[in-house]
Amino acid sequence: MMLPEFYVDQVIQTALREDLPYLDAATDWLLPPGATGRANFLAKDDGVLCGLGEALRVFTLLSSDFTFETFKQDGDALQKGEVFATVAGPLPLLLKGERTALNLIQHLSGIATATRRLVSLTAGTKAVIADTRKTLPGLRAMQKYAVTCGGGKNHRLNLSDCAMLKDNHIDAAGGISAAVAAVRQKVGHTVKIEVETRNLTEVAEAVEAGADIIMLDNMTCDEMRRAVELIAGRALTEASGGITEETLRAVAQTGVDIISVGALTHSVRAFDISLKLQKDQ
Amino acid sequence: MMLPEFYVDQVIQTALREDLPYLDAATDWLLPPGATGRANFLAKDDGVLCGLGEALRVFTLLSSDFTFETFKQDGDALQKGEVFATVAGPLPLLLKGERTALNLIQHLSGIATATRRLVSLTAGTKAVIADTRKTLPGLRAMQKYAVTCGGGKNHRLNLSDCAMLKDNHIDAAGGISAAVAAVRQKVGHTVKIEVETRNLTEVAEAVEAGADIIMLDNMTCDEMRRAVELIAGRALTEASGGITEETLRAVAQTGVDIISVGALTHSVRAFDISLKLQKDQ
Amino acid sequence: MMLPEFYVDQVIQTALREDLPYLDAATDWLLPPGATGRANFLAKDDGVLCGLGEALRVFTLLSSDFTFETFKQDGDALQKGEVFATVAGPLPLLLKGERTALNLIQHLSGIATATRRLVSLTAGTKAVIADTRKTLPGLRAMQKYAVTCGGGKNHRLNLSDCAMLKDNHIDAAGGISAAVAAVRQKVGHTVKIEVETRNLTEVAEAVEAGADIIMLDNMTCDEMRRAVELIAGRALTEASGGITEETLRAVAQTGVDIISVGALTHSVRAFDISLKLQKDQ
Amino acid sequence: MMLPEFYVDQVIQTALREDLPYLDAATDWLLPPGATGRANFLAKDDGVLCGLGEALRVFTLLSSDFTFETFKQDGDALQKGEVFATVAGPLPLLLKGERTALNLIQHLSGIATATRRLVSLTAGTKAVIADTRKTLPGLRAMQKYAVTCGGGKNHRLNLSDCAMLKDNHIDAAGGISAAVAAVRQKVGHTVKIEVETRNLTEVAEAVEAGADIIMLDNMTCDEMRRAVELIAGRALTEASGGITEETLRAVAQTGVDIISVGALTHSVRAFDISLKLQKDQ
Amino acid sequence: MMLPEFYVDQVIQTALREDLPYLDAATDWLLPPGATGRANFLAKDDGVLCGLGEALRVFTLLSSDFTFETFKQDGDALQKGEVFATVAGPLPLLLKGERTALNLIQHLSGIATATRRLVSLTAGTKAVIADTRKTLPGLRAMQKYAVTCGGGKNHRLNLSDCAMLKDNHIDAAGGISAAVAAVRQKVGHTVKIEVETRNLTEVAEAVEAGADIIMLDNMTCDEMRRAVELIAGRALTEASGGITEETLRAVAQTGVDIISVGALTHSVRAFDISLKLQKDQ
Amino acid sequence: MMLPEFYVDQVIQTALREDLPYLDAATDWLLPPGATGRANFLAKDDGVLCGLGEALRVFTLLSSDFTFETFKQDGDALQKGEVFATVAGPLPLLLKGERTALNLIQHLSGIATATRRLVSLTAGTKAVIADTRKTLPGLRAMQKYAVTCGGGKNHRLNLSDCAMLKDNHIDAAGGISAAVAAVRQKVGHTVKIEVETRNLTEVAEAVEAGADIIMLDNMTCDEMRRAVELIAGRALTEASGGITEETLRAVAQTGVDIISVGALTHSVRAFDISLKLQKDQ
Repeated sequence: MMLPEFYVDQVIQTALREDLPYLDAATDWLLPPGATGRANFLAKDDGVLCGLGEALRVFTLLSSDFTFETFKQDGDALQKGEVFATVAGPLPLLLKGERTALNLIQHLSGIATATRRLVSLTAGTKAVIADTRKTLPGLRAMQKYAVTCGGGKNHRLNLSDCAMLKDNHIDAAGGISAAVAAVRQKVGHTVKIEVETRNLTEVAEAVEAGADIIMLDNMTCDEMRRAVELIAGRALTEASGGITEETLRAVAQTGVDIISVGALTHSVRAFDISLKLQKDQ
Repeated sequence: MMLPEFYVDQVIQTALREDLPYLDAATDWLLPPGATGRANFLAKDDGVLCGLGEALRVFTLLSSDFTFETFKQDGDALQKGEVFATVAGPLPLLLKGERTALNLIQHLSGIATATRRLVSLTAGTKAVIADTRKTLPGLRAMQKYAVTCGGGKNHRLNLSDCAMLKDNHIDAAGGISAAVAAVRQKVGHTVKIEVETRNLTEVAEAVEAGADIIMLDNMTCDEMRRAVELIAGRALTEASGGITEETLRAVAQTGVDIISVGALTHSVRAFDISLKLQKDQ
Repeated sequence: MMLPEFYVDQVIQTALREDLPYLDAATDWLLPPGATGRANFLAKDDGVLCGLGEALRVFTLLSSDFTFETFKQDGDALQKGEVFATVAGPLPLLLKGERTALNLIQHLSGIATATRRLVSLTAGTKAVIADTRKTLPGLRAMQKYAVTCGGGKNHRLNLSDCAMLKDNHIDAAGGISAAVAAVRQKVGHTVKIEVETRNLTEVAEAVEAGADIIMLDNMTCDEMRRAVELIAGRALTEASGGITEETLRAVAQTGVDIISVGALTHSVRAFDISLKLQKDQ
Repeated sequence: MMLPEFYVDQVIQTALREDLPYLDAATDWLLPPGATGRANFLAKDDGVLCGLGEALRVFTLLSSDFTFETFKQDGDALQKGEVFATVAGPLPLLLKGERTALNLIQHLSGIATATRRLVSLTAGTKAVIADTRKTLPGLRAMQKYAVTCGGGKNHRLNLSDCAMLKDNHIDAAGGISAAVAAVRQKVGHTVKIEVETRNLTEVAEAVEAGADIIMLDNMTCDEMRRAVELIAGRALTEASGGITEETLRAVAQTGVDIISVGALTHSVRAFDISLKLQKDQ
Repeated sequence: MMLPEFYVDQVIQTALREDLPYLDAATDWLLPPGATGRANFLAKDDGVLCGLGEALRVFTLLSSDFTFETFKQDGDALQKGEVFATVAGPLPLLLKGERTALNLIQHLSGIATATRRLVSLTAGTKAVIADTRKTLPGLRAMQKYAVTCGGGKNHRLNLSDCAMLKDNHIDAAGGISAAVAAVRQKVGHTVKIEVETRNLTEVAEAVEAGADIIMLDNMTCDEMRRAVELIAGRALTEASGGITEETLRAVAQTGVDIISVGALTHSVRAFDISLKLQKDQ
Repeated sequence: MMLPEFYVDQVIQTALREDLPYLDAATDWLLPPGATGRANFLAKDDGVLCGLGEALRVFTLLSSDFTFETFKQDGDALQKGEVFATVAGPLPLLLKGERTALNLIQHLSGIATATRRLVSLTAGTKAVIADTRKTLPGLRAMQKYAVTCGGGKNHRLNLSDCAMLKDNHIDAAGGISAAVAAVRQKVGHTVKIEVETRNLTEVAEAVEAGADIIMLDNMTCDEMRRAVELIAGRALTEASGGITEETLRAVAQTGVDIISVGALTHSVRAFDISLKLQKDQ
């Protein structure tokens, strides 16, 4: 796993605590404690794998007796019907952990799959697809990791690691120039400053103020094209707001550097994966 | 809030910790500490509200100085353009909490909205729409609450509060009858037993065994209709597996009691809500 | 262990944190760090074993170098003087973990032993002994598990997994029928509804309302007998309130299905177990 | 509350999380959200109150709208039928918190009541009743506080704050004198050293070694009397092991300073308290 | 407080749990519960204040009855003998919280004071003083905040928010250019890339590779001066390694942008502050 | 490790969470996942080692694949240039854990080194060097352990395990005798009572009152010498307040038993240690 194990474990333990506050009312009364089993992770659709290590970790946290075989890794394409990993170990715990493992891997693979689709729609342009802070509580790092597995890039992780100046900040400071200057004087040298702009006048002011990144918020493709020209490489450009699969390619062709898409993490469609016990064992 | 406050607070604090590990690189250097503001929660689409108390709680956890007005409550219909609540208080904290509050309310309202749509598709039948354990880590109780706000009902909360007998359990016990009997002897008297069936033979065996609920797994509408007849009210019937918006009404018309839909919680489309600062303040 | 490991670990770590906030003022200054030892778990009385896995887990959490032999398992009868398990490993950690391990196993075996005694008093009747929510903070799942090891059954685990209608609920709803109907319309199909009744009129109303379980609260044996007749199998019957070892058998003979006893978990007498170091090592 | 609020809150939140993982299946569907109520804490037996602040804190943690009246305080005697406090506030939360509050106060008052009884049995002697480390996981500080409310005193809180030398420590060090000397050289000057002794030879050695406290372990009253004489005030004396209510007074009359009793915290009988809603509200 | 309250509270609660695991053995047995008091925070030396809000928060967490007056704020200069805040409220809790509050404010003011001294040594140059990741476990955000109060700036907060390429990274990638290119392709657009260099050849390679920041590691002043010339504003320059109060000004005069100093957070001298009870109350 | 593993792990996990909230922006994109490495812990100065087990534990918590060799142990003297341990394992995790491990071991070795220096200054006297409660939040047990590694002894761990009577306590009780008597009647028999005194009159009163320890607060050496004579072995004597390296030996020669020094833990100078990768691997 690339994600820190202590973070992953915390998410999994929260999930297990939700699902198993006491005994498993079926498994614990029916399965012989010593039974073992082997199960296949099976893709039920075409897509991109993400969260395999996290899903397997569910079983390791339930028992150190589980063993695994993996045939694909995070970021790999999956085809409908493909077995991409197997898990073997104590059968009662395999049944108890199944839902938690699937919930995780289906969500993360769903994000990676959707990201890959958007990335492919921008092929041949220089635009990269980026995520946002529109994530689900407790899952931000996992969701952002899934975006990278789909070929997207991460926007800022939180409010501390990049200064994003919005209209309220700019109003309080008395204009874009004053705002950028005031922040630059205070934030550390590793922190970039991004300015949200709504028209070319603001774009011009932001580029003069020395913004590192200029967000083109809810602009038309034409406006964005002119903004990119105006900025002329002096700052990174980010398209944002109301971009759909339909409009994405046109936006990418305006020459912007980044297209950020909240739906990648706020409106996730689970990727269908099942865990099938091998019966003949 | 109907949800226990200590649970809601834990989810929110986890989210705030993700988003604000240190200072807000824009707000903390630009906004005067004493500034105050007032903002409107605005629906950007038609849908069902859920998570209002949870969203407002974000601000209360940031400062006890926030005050609120609410014009709608959880479960109410929202119309595009409608302001349904306002929040007033310290402006820096309003900006810092905005994203966390919106992430929560958009997710929960998305679930409630989708549930309401499915419920309306079954109008006139006795079928109720139910959720599943296919939830996101750490959010199960919130997601299930959102389902009730949309008019759906909750399936079991976890592995402990209902005994769901699947093929592996049944195989281990030596058949449906043996499995039901063995569990009945062990689980408490408040725990219902549900049996997963794949055909009418299994349905017949389950009803004879005294199952409280019989799941009709991936059956055709015709099979389900015959299963309902066969069961004749001796157990609750639950349709599950591969049900889409297109097939939902037909399934409901088979006479089943419950239709459980994993997508309600595993594939959520966020409901669009914004928080607009009142500029003239 | 049947109990989820993450739950057990949390209880043990809380206990270790209480007992060992820093060094062990005797062991850490006197024992050679490399010393090893072997100790026997010894029953000092006749009773029923419960919590063996949990007690051994204390040592595993202190060091992965411990090894164990077990001669009995949870639910087995113990006789005074019987050695039922041994633990071998680092002597300093054996001494540091001893008290925490004994506190756990003595409490749980105390519950199992008391439960077994009550169960034996109802032999030949159909009544089962059940626990209640009168448990100690943080120990509910463990205590309920111990009841099952003694041959009892679990009443509801919490306020969410069974709807228990008491007089305040019934008053608010405007009567038993209205209350049952209102809850049935809202709660999920896996949740049973239990109604507390104090006389035969209420019993009749509850059975008509379709309650799943009817609690006969503080009734005389004669009243209970008539209630059982009146209900005639249409609902489960639960005797509760003021039942002592002296009156238990008479209550069981009224034909009730369940007898719930709060003292099983709120007034526990520890079962005496010691951990004796084998001196000749 | 004398106990630190952050500790008490942690215990209560753990208990609430156990009891209310989601909605209250009865209260949340039946009680009008705005309903209020007032309830009396009522003693159902004679005894000693302990845990009143902790029980009331349960309600405060559920809502800041609760108000309280208290007529007794921790350590006060209660008589059967006595109302000693009232709580008023949101009725749904009053019902949800009732069991958690009662579980706490009944356990702590049970400890205080039992301690007071033992203390009264030693009246006129100089012996004080002390607790042990035989406590329940997570409840040590609360249980020890309850012992003080009953008039007992606390033995060491944990393994770090007093050096108790048992046979294994003494064997490892090569005798009592060597053990005491080795520990004295290492532990801080605020830490007392106690030596467990089983006969008068060991007592003599311990007193010569400069032990601060000498435990007389499982000795007869006659041996203890001779030990007290031998020690002659040069160390505190503690009787321990197998002391029952029947033998307690005789032990106290041997002249020992402290009698430690594990049963005070490991075998607690809950003190019966109820919370009655005032109906005429 | 500018620092997020949930973070500050967590640090304080950890500290209180260390210091007050049970009763206060002096205060709880001697002070009348209702006693109140007022105390002054008094500077015992000249320096810079930091952590006032955090220190006062200790008391608020102990009781909501405390009130405060503050005459200075974080970042202000303090003079020996100056009273800069008062706290009034329950006397027993004032005594219990005193040490925890002082430990915090003395540590943070110590950092701010030392930072201010270094900043003053660079007056008239463009060099800013920055901290490092050499912080104490659990205190990073607080320590970094204290650096800003002293007039310093923050280097990266953690391993995720800036890519710092050290020799091992560069070796693995096959050179500086390859390393910068590989990271640029992967990290988000808000993340800056810093390269550690040890000589002018590496500096030249780093500037060509497009590094955002170039660390001049353990170079002589002369080397640094030539590096600054060579870079010519195409990247930020950071001096690091072995810089003392004696050499600081000379380093600043080389023209570097940033001088990072680990000792600011790893070798903190507490600033002496006392909390004096007003006796005449 | 002598410190309890669960405590150490908690400190380390907090530190890792601060430093690695997501991916390592350099290591995770540049190092091949399967790379391994070996690194040496190297002393960059003369001093005393402390925290070796804790530093190595950082790597174990990141991966169970790390192995270690240790050539010194806590409390041993280190010489500048000495390699005292090696760590081998997954190179990416070695790089990710390096800073956290060094931050811990440098802080603890800094404390041990400073303590050893003070201890050496008192050579030939009976005075022992002790720490105080002036510790950093969350690090008390670690810091106190480091003091013992340097040859110092621990003063009380917290407010619960020793009764320290200061002027406010004494005033509230009506004098030293009354205060000591009141506390003695309440606290357990394992708790010592220490009285803070400012002059010989108070010393005389404290010794008469039966204090176990008498603190001589901010007295001159002459006053302390007379206090020691007056006490004549009836209580332990502790010098405290304003003692510097310069005055330490003179204080020790007054005959006091303990000299407590807050700076040992509140003003720590990190001991310089580096972790050097073996390049030829």
